[in-house]
Amino acid sequence: MQGVIDLPEELQPVADLVAARLLDVATRFDGQLESDLPPVNQLCKHIERYRGKMLRPTLVILCGAAAHPEAGGRELASLVTDDHATLGAVCEMVHMATLVHDDVLDEAETRRRGDTVNRLRGNETAVILGDYLIASAYHLCSGLGTQRYALAIGRASAVMCAGELLQLHHRGDYSLDEPTYFEIVERKTAELIAAACEMGAVCSGASEDHTQRLRRYGLSLGVAFQIQDDLLDLTGEERVVGKSVGKDVEKGKMTLPLIHHLATADDDRRARTLTLLERAAEGGASGAEAGRLIAHAVESTNSLDHARGVAQRLVGEARQALSALPASPVRAMLDAMALAVVNRAF
Amino acid sequence: MQGVIDLPEELQPVADLVAARLLDVATRFDGQLESDLPPVNQLCKHIERYRGKMLRPTLVILCGAAAHPEAGGRELASLVTDDHATLGAVCEMVHMATLVHDDVLDEAETRRRGDTVNRLRGNETAVILGDYLIASAYHLCSGLGTQRYALAIGRASAVMCAGELLQLHHRGDYSLDEPTYFEIVERKTAELIAAACEMGAVCSGASEDHTQRLRRYGLSLGVAFQIQDDLLDLTGEERVVGKSVGKDVEKGKMTLPLIHHLATADDDRRARTLTLLERAAEGGASGAEAGRLIAHAVESTNSLDHARGVAQRLVGEARQALSALPASPVRAMLDAMALAVVNRAF
Repeated sequence: MQGVIDLPEELQPVADLVAARLLDVATRFDGQLESDLPPVNQLCKHIERYRGKMLRPTLVILCGAAAHPEAGGRELASLVTDDHATLGAVCEMVHMATLVHDDVLDEAETRRRGDTVNRLRGNETAVILGDYLIASAYHLCSGLGTQRYALAIGRASAVMCAGELLQLHHRGDYSLDEPTYFEIVERKTAELIAAACEMGAVCSGASEDHTQRLRRYGLSLGVAFQIQDDLLDLTGEERVVGKSVGKDVEKGKMTLPLIHHLATADDDRRARTLTLLERAAEGGASGAEAGRLIAHAVESTNSLDHARGVAQRLVGEARQALSALPASPVRAMLDAMALAVVNRAF
Repeated sequence: MQGVIDLPEELQPVADLVAARLLDVATRFDGQLESDLPPVNQLCKHIERYRGKMLRPTLVILCGAAAHPEAGGRELASLVTDDHATLGAVCEMVHMATLVHDDVLDEAETRRRGDTVNRLRGNETAVILGDYLIASAYHLCSGLGTQRYALAIGRASAVMCAGELLQLHHRGDYSLDEPTYFEIVERKTAELIAAACEMGAVCSGASEDHTQRLRRYGLSLGVAFQIQDDLLDLTGEERVVGKSVGKDVEKGKMTLPLIHHLATADDDRRARTLTLLERAAEGGASGAEAGRLIAHAVESTNSLDHARGVAQRLVGEARQALSALPASPVRAMLDAMALAVVNRAF
């Protein structure tokens, strides 16, 4: 989390714990993907660079520590086990599979300032590499002591795909409303984050109440995270964000600012934005220019502020969900992470 | 299996058992994919037509019955449980996911005489629908009484993807040799078939020896099956095969007849075939004509016969693996299926 959050001194031991455990996560991740076939290893090497914030493994670790029944009375490091690290690797692998497949769908060319797999090696390899990541995640998960995790990951993955299929179904549907938007985002983005929080807690033997609260924390955080992504796609700079921007309008994906804009703009403004959206969907230089004009247009209806407000409300709900857990530096870290989601520019 | 094998009368009760259990497989399959989102259900409805021979569920059922420790002493129907049907649905779902993704990779337009998902709804939807099928398979599998199945399916899926990645790595590599070809095919095609046989046996509490023999049966059968696919892609008629033919040469995929042809043709013939392969890879009408000329050329080196011979040898090995199991109508059916693989034209 270095560089993501300005850490107060008392949270440093928590950050150190997370950093140490994330090394274990990375080791398990790489070990599981290792193959006896050199071309497979070469591909896996390439996607190591996609490993960024490791948000999901971090949440497995932190939720595991925060919800542990002996959270107050034991040394911090002893609250997080090897199984937490394995679950973190499983979540990161499923997440990375969605990144690799999303880059195919979005025809994205850069990811974390490097070329995407689809750009370098073609769509075919990117599709199968994503499948390999999913299969490896399940294989790793099924080796744990209880089937509960495999069941949770299988369920979460199916929910994520259903959300993505719903989004594809509504691609280019400029009349998409906010309830459908939230239905898509809760499934597509937030479900895996919620599952990471939930599994971290389960793996510590947390009470059902604490487990469900952490799941809700993850769900709210996940939706807020997606809204921030929406905002960055409209207003961010590729150099800072580290991946292609302006792809949402180009691919006919409705984002929260756009939905609000189309719902609140007067007829004339609305008609002009719809024309721009159609031009943006055609791509090319004229499409990119249309994208910039759209980013400008949504300001006229305060739609960026509206989206920022919704994200902030969700962050408030996430923090509220935490409040039933015993106060601790780990809980404070989860709280700080919720706040960081809406302040990030990457 | 009606229409696939001309059944001797004594195998009719086995065929009836399989047919009855395949109905359970289909029910579980559809039930697991059902979503609260209508657009998702609509897509799942479309791929119901992909359900063809159901080779993998059939093998789960037959291997479960053949390897049951009480195979001789109990009523046939009682040897196959609900868990066998669930495992059959799991294998079929993973298989269907690979079909949906393969159709994206191959840019195929027809499958089972209908349009492919990628043709009808675009590559994006096809990729995510495939992911949804994989996730649903894992979810279903994780609900069974033991983790052994989830572990087997996770492992088999990862092996399949590694095989496919190896094949993509060698796409257009006209110097591919037979050992690498078998490495690809064993993983890509045979592994899931072997896992279906193995899990069917495990689910019946079979001995380790019988389980491993059925796994070997599946592995040999699977490779023979792929070689027959290779032959049909070169010599089959789309109307009979039910899917696009001539795709292998067009996509630069080396098949067994081609590998043998290039390895045994004289320099002049080899050079002419390589030129044809390059033209075929360019696609279009001239590419299709090149494909037909290649199909003709491989006959000059008896390469179709060579491939048929290898497939027949593998079928022999599959039948040999069965021989240690107690003689029964179920074993006879597995034997008949092995023979049918090399005689099919679809």
